[in-house]
Amino acid sequence: MLIVKKFGGTSVADKERMLHVAGICAEEYKKGNDVVVVLSAMGKQTDVLLTQAEEINPNAPKREIDMLLTTGEQISVALMAMALESMGVPAISFHAFQAGIYTSKVYGNARIQRIDTARMEEALSDRKVVIVAGFQGINEAGDYTTLGRGGSDTTAVALAAVLKADVCEIYTDVDGVYTADPRMVPSAVKLKEISYEEMLELASLGAGVLHNRSVEMAKRFGVELVVKSSFENLEGTRVCDNTGKKSALFQLEDGAIRAAQSLEGTTMEEMLVSGVTADKNTARIQLTGIKETTKEIYHIFQRLSEQHIGADSVLMSPSRDKTTDISFTVPRDRLSETVEVLNRYSKESFSPIEIIAEDNIAKVSAVGAGMMSNTAIAVNMFEALHEASIDTHMIYASELRITVLVDEKDTLKAVRAVHERLIEKRMK
Amino acid sequence: MLIVKKFGGTSVADKERMLHVAGICAEEYKKGNDVVVVLSAMGKQTDVLLTQAEEINPNAPKREIDMLLTTGEQISVALMAMALESMGVPAISFHAFQAGIYTSKVYGNARIQRIDTARMEEALSDRKVVIVAGFQGINEAGDYTTLGRGGSDTTAVALAAVLKADVCEIYTDVDGVYTADPRMVPSAVKLKEISYEEMLELASLGAGVLHNRSVEMAKRFGVELVVKSSFENLEGTRVCDNTGKKSALFQLEDGAIRAAQSLEGTTMEEMLVSGVTADKNTARIQLTGIKETTKEIYHIFQRLSEQHIGADSVLMSPSRDKTTDISFTVPRDRLSETVEVLNRYSKESFSPIEIIAEDNIAKVSAVGAGMMSNTAIAVNMFEALHEASIDTHMIYASELRITVLVDEKDTLKAVRAVHERLIEKRMK
Repeated sequence: MLIVKKFGGTSVADKERMLHVAGICAEEYKKGNDVVVVLSAMGKQTDVLLTQAEEINPNAPKREIDMLLTTGEQISVALMAMALESMGVPAISFHAFQAGIYTSKVYGNARIQRIDTARMEEALSDRKVVIVAGFQGINEAGDYTTLGRGGSDTTAVALAAVLKADVCEIYTDVDGVYTADPRMVPSAVKLKEISYEEMLELASLGAGVLHNRSVEMAKRFGVELVVKSSFENLEGTRVCDNTGKKSALFQLEDGAIRAAQSLEGTTMEEMLVSGVTADKNTARIQLTGIKETTKEIYHIFQRLSEQHIGADSVLMSPSRDKTTDISFTVPRDRLSETVEVLNRYSKESFSPIEIIAEDNIAKVSAVGAGMMSNTAIAVNMFEALHEASIDTHMIYASELRITVLVDEKDTLKAVRAVHERLIEKRMK
Repeated sequence: MLIVKKFGGTSVADKERMLHVAGICAEEYKKGNDVVVVLSAMGKQTDVLLTQAEEINPNAPKREIDMLLTTGEQISVALMAMALESMGVPAISFHAFQAGIYTSKVYGNARIQRIDTARMEEALSDRKVVIVAGFQGINEAGDYTTLGRGGSDTTAVALAAVLKADVCEIYTDVDGVYTADPRMVPSAVKLKEISYEEMLELASLGAGVLHNRSVEMAKRFGVELVVKSSFENLEGTRVCDNTGKKSALFQLEDGAIRAAQSLEGTTMEEMLVSGVTADKNTARIQLTGIKETTKEIYHIFQRLSEQHIGADSVLMSPSRDKTTDISFTVPRDRLSETVEVLNRYSKESFSPIEIIAEDNIAKVSAVGAGMMSNTAIAVNMFEALHEASIDTHMIYASELRITVLVDEKDTLKAVRAVHERLIEKRMK
């Protein structure tokens, strides 16, 4: 078996944790498995480096920021190799130049394009544990790039894909994927399995366990992901492909409840929701008075996309006066930028539009395959929200999720109400 | 003009010093010169990393130690590029992979073998300041190596050689090369110029300003070195070739005294000593009872050389009983190893030798070209030591230096007495 194991900064924050992680890897190696380890920078090292940069030059060139940050993972991998060697396990550390991780040229947010696996494969065939610096790559100019948020997860999945690993294990400070954030909903349950698609929705809707880029890549290359705890030896959650078997959508950890039937023809009682999430980094934009619908919408979203502003939950509704209203959400920390872009557009185009922005809201979502096929889920969700006296500002539904916008102050109440109705009730 | 500037760890220890150094480089750049900057790791960063490694694995593989340490210089160069950019000076940082610094394969003590200058030359022709991580290289396996003690000086000189720089400026926390350590001899004088050969002797005899590897390389490739202060804007000391002009051996900074005549025929009064040094990291070994002189001596030094133990000041003297005595010095921190090697040799060869080791001694040397041609210098030196009631244990003299071993407790007294007699008296 070839196993890729990824550990985040918290898992390698100090000497003790470093040795603990080395122990996990040594155990795997001694079972006879080939092991590739992907590491982030130790603890808060990346933030420390960013502060140093900020103090010297608040507008530092992005190339140099990446040159600076990549040292963080290099320190982790070198120390990990030493830790493994101290346990009698042969190991070798690689940074992006040595692991041959080629990316697009964009500093700070590069995409992996190809990986030259020669050195890693040679080391594996020498029965060495291969330790690779996560989060970093090199572009064709021969400069360091970094992969942006969730970068080390992406490195791990990419390596698992090109090395054809049997499984990619993402170790975190939680022990798996839950039906809701256990800090918000104490009755949340750990999932034993979840599909890529559902995980993607959960990830992009604020469940901080995995970054959606890594899930997307895992889905594309069929890499089996396991999310597990680096502190406790528990089973974790398996993220894998089940498009081939439309039943057994997922399985709660206690094994008590299974969606045993195929989606078509499934009844509400058998249908299960895999998770409820909340995301407060959201703001709602409403545009009214749009005349030439298709053309204008195209232009508006092109403007936003040029600024890398991702709009979510887009809804359109024709208005009485033959114009169209559009509403969508953007990350709250991009709101002022968004309004600026839209104002400029409104001025430049000769059809002024009215812009309404709302930022004291939160996005609460229920995720599960086949949502829309089962209107009963939506009905139950809205009923639960209504019973809890929560106002909903906008509703967005797709095959995989139902999202409602609620007042920010109602976030916790909404998550608990929806979780109780859609998940806990089903478990009884 | 193309100028290589090297700054040590003290000069880039924090944000303020980093910006100060950037200022020096920006000024040079704005004069229209091309500038290459070589940096060490910030302050005590290398020691911090070594301690981390030691805690995790006291016998860490040397490859991984180098992988760890090289991050230190990478952080320096990235921050320096940001600092220069903040001053409006275009800059780009390179680590050893990017600067193409290929070395021998030995980790921890590699030698530079070749440098691919393509990227650096391209950046210089784009009028960028090129900032290169010192102390590091890569071997043919594609792994990081480090250059050992004084490594960043060596990087700077090597770059100056391959890029055909007009001058290589080594910035340190002193403002030049002195006739003696000013902390020991307050009357010591800064030299305006010194030859490679004299600088080599000074360097290897304990004047900590430059490492002798870098001086050797400068001499071999004719790189003009200037040692100057990174804190004060003073002229510094020029280290250059004057084998072609045997007069004007060096020039004291005040310009008052010159050795204007050629060495041949020089009188004692005109002859000048360029420096007096002390080195306490020394121990003396005396071997007696050696029978087959040439063969045995060859074998003994071969054994030491295999362990990379450098013997200095080797003296041989025939004994009355037809055997030979040999004495030499080794670095004091290698003494126990040396004794071990010699004991093993003595046991294995069938001619047992007696080994005497002494470690409470120090090496005091006077350096200057043409020492042996002027017996008067030796006479004066011994007279000065005698008048100061200092016992000398061993004397070694070559064309470039006279070294005496004295009791460690007499070190300061000896340096002052020799400096006063050979340098201060000549200046009057």
